Amino acid sequence: MASNNVVSLEDHQNADKTITAIEKMQSLVADQMQLVNDTILKRMDSPVALIPELAGHLINSGGKRLRPMLTLASSKLLAYEGKKQIGLATAVEFIHTATLLHDDVVDESKLRRGKKPANLIWGNQATVLVGDFLFSRAFELMVESDSLRVLQILSNTSAVITEGEVLQLTVANDLSTTEETYLQVITAKTAVLFAAACEVAGVISEEHGEEAEKALEAYGKYLGIAFQLVDDALDYNAKRATLGKEIGDDFREGKITLPVILAYRRGSDEEREFWKRTIQKLKQEDGDLEHALELLTQHGTINDTIERARHYGAMAKDALAIFKDSEAKDCMLGIVDFCIERAY
Amino acid sequence: MASNNVVSLEDHQNADKTITAIEKMQSLVADQMQLVNDTILKRMDSPVALIPELAGHLINSGGKRLRPMLTLASSKLLAYEGKKQIGLATAVEFIHTATLLHDDVVDESKLRRGKKPANLIWGNQATVLVGDFLFSRAFELMVESDSLRVLQILSNTSAVITEGEVLQLTVANDLSTTEETYLQVITAKTAVLFAAACEVAGVISEEHGEEAEKALEAYGKYLGIAFQLVDDALDYNAKRATLGKEIGDDFREGKITLPVILAYRRGSDEEREFWKRTIQKLKQEDGDLEHALELLTQHGTINDTIERARHYGAMAKDALAIFKDSEAKDCMLGIVDFCIERAY
Repeated sequence: MASNNVVSLEDHQNADKTITAIEKMQSLVADQMQLVNDTILKRMDSPVALIPELAGHLINSGGKRLRPMLTLASSKLLAYEGKKQIGLATAVEFIHTATLLHDDVVDESKLRRGKKPANLIWGNQATVLVGDFLFSRAFELMVESDSLRVLQILSNTSAVITEGEVLQLTVANDLSTTEETYLQVITAKTAVLFAAACEVAGVISEEHGEEAEKALEAYGKYLGIAFQLVDDALDYNAKRATLGKEIGDDFREGKITLPVILAYRRGSDEEREFWKRTIQKLKQEDGDLEHALELLTQHGTINDTIERARHYGAMAKDALAIFKDSEAKDCMLGIVDFCIERAY
Repeated sequence: MASNNVVSLEDHQNADKTITAIEKMQSLVADQMQLVNDTILKRMDSPVALIPELAGHLINSGGKRLRPMLTLASSKLLAYEGKKQIGLATAVEFIHTATLLHDDVVDESKLRRGKKPANLIWGNQATVLVGDFLFSRAFELMVESDSLRVLQILSNTSAVITEGEVLQLTVANDLSTTEETYLQVITAKTAVLFAAACEVAGVISEEHGEEAEKALEAYGKYLGIAFQLVDDALDYNAKRATLGKEIGDDFREGKITLPVILAYRRGSDEEREFWKRTIQKLKQEDGDLEHALELLTQHGTINDTIERARHYGAMAKDALAIFKDSEAKDCMLGIVDFCIERAY
């Protein structure tokens, strides 16, 4: 289950298609993304050398910069001609990076899991502080947009993200978590930043009005939900190795994600005991991950999680219907497919 | 050295004097502080119960709310008649509380020290996230002030604070730290928030102009430096027990503060070896704290630290010279003395 060296023709086709969608988007915003990258480097700098060193560890780790890309693409969609999107895209990436750094901070009991997050190299304290530094720099960049509406959106986003993360912590290892609560968590911790990344482009492109802002917000939100659903499915997907990532991280942490929520609800008493032991009590043995994968497959919950993602993806696409056709719109529609099809 | 049950007449007099200055200030801003307290409770609330629970642990722990008090008193000094100072005072307190929560996050090696900070009750992760939540709420409150200048000041303040905290981490246990670097650390981590707390009152009280803003900023900054110097002196002060606090925390952590910086520079080779063992290598034995106190006393470095504080206190007072006499000005001058005289 965990390794599969046979690559079928279909896999190749899908791989090509997904690469095309993200590459198309990357090429659409290439010039502006260069300015964003310059701004990132400039604004994460500090005479205190540890700050750019630690921040750079994550920022230069080769992420796709999906969130700032959404701000840039949304600005293109509205044919915005100013320069404010550069600083805002940088702010969005900083908020995201700060969140990741703070996610890395762990408790004593969880310190060893074979990964090398920032906190294992520089310690919890430095990791928290550099996250705070990036948060503060994000706010400075937002202030430079000279738009109180942008500041309202992004400061509220930031509060909702942390609320979502605390909620996630509260329901950690709790198998009675409902799909509704799960949706609330992923909306708050992931989708609202996607939504804000798009919406702020509407705000700075003033002449398009509230309808455009709301459409972009909805697009970002549904895309973000789809993105996180697929992310949670991928953690139980054997082909994840092709993305250079391990599978089963969520299982080992006892994280409550939709594949498990559905399997627990659909399972027999015996199966529920298995989930209680492994996810709730975190008493895991060799072979447990494999058994979990069998149960998820048997109840079809990985596929159903991707089906749910497809539903939100369709809503994201429909939200863009009010905009006339353009290269930017094409790219934004393509990114929805990309986010879902990376599951295969 | 550590306990002194004999209370002299002079102690009584000083105690009365300090109580008077802070009480005078408290009574000056009592009505508005009630509104700030209401706003704190309202804005730290969340449907995610862990958030108000954890935030309340610190916020309700009986601090003097010195920073928001400065915002309120500065507004009174300028005879400001609006309501914006309430939200800003709350934002300042939230930034301070978030900083304290993030300071509580420690690394594995430092987890046990007999204290009960938030992270020992709720864990590092929750503590970091609730700190982030308060930061975000602070920014929301700032945005409501409708003043981009206020946002500039406070977002920059927030970046400088974290820069100062990282710098402090970088020089931790490093006895070659100069007094200049130490001043840089305490200015950034403590004084800029005092400065911003006062300065924003000048910004919202628009008609007073830049001169008033700069005077308030200078007052806050010098007061903050004096406050932190005294705080660092108090950690080696036997009478600290009267404030309900332990002494020697900084020593046990190997924190580099002015009393130690000066004693190391003034000490003999043998004394320097003692400091290297205890502060740099953190190899501490019974009796080391007592010996450290002897060395600090012998070289007069606790008193000299308080003398330095007195110098900055004088500068803080002079910064207020441009304002005409008033009850608010009296209180703000009195608070400088309070911050310094709590050392005795």
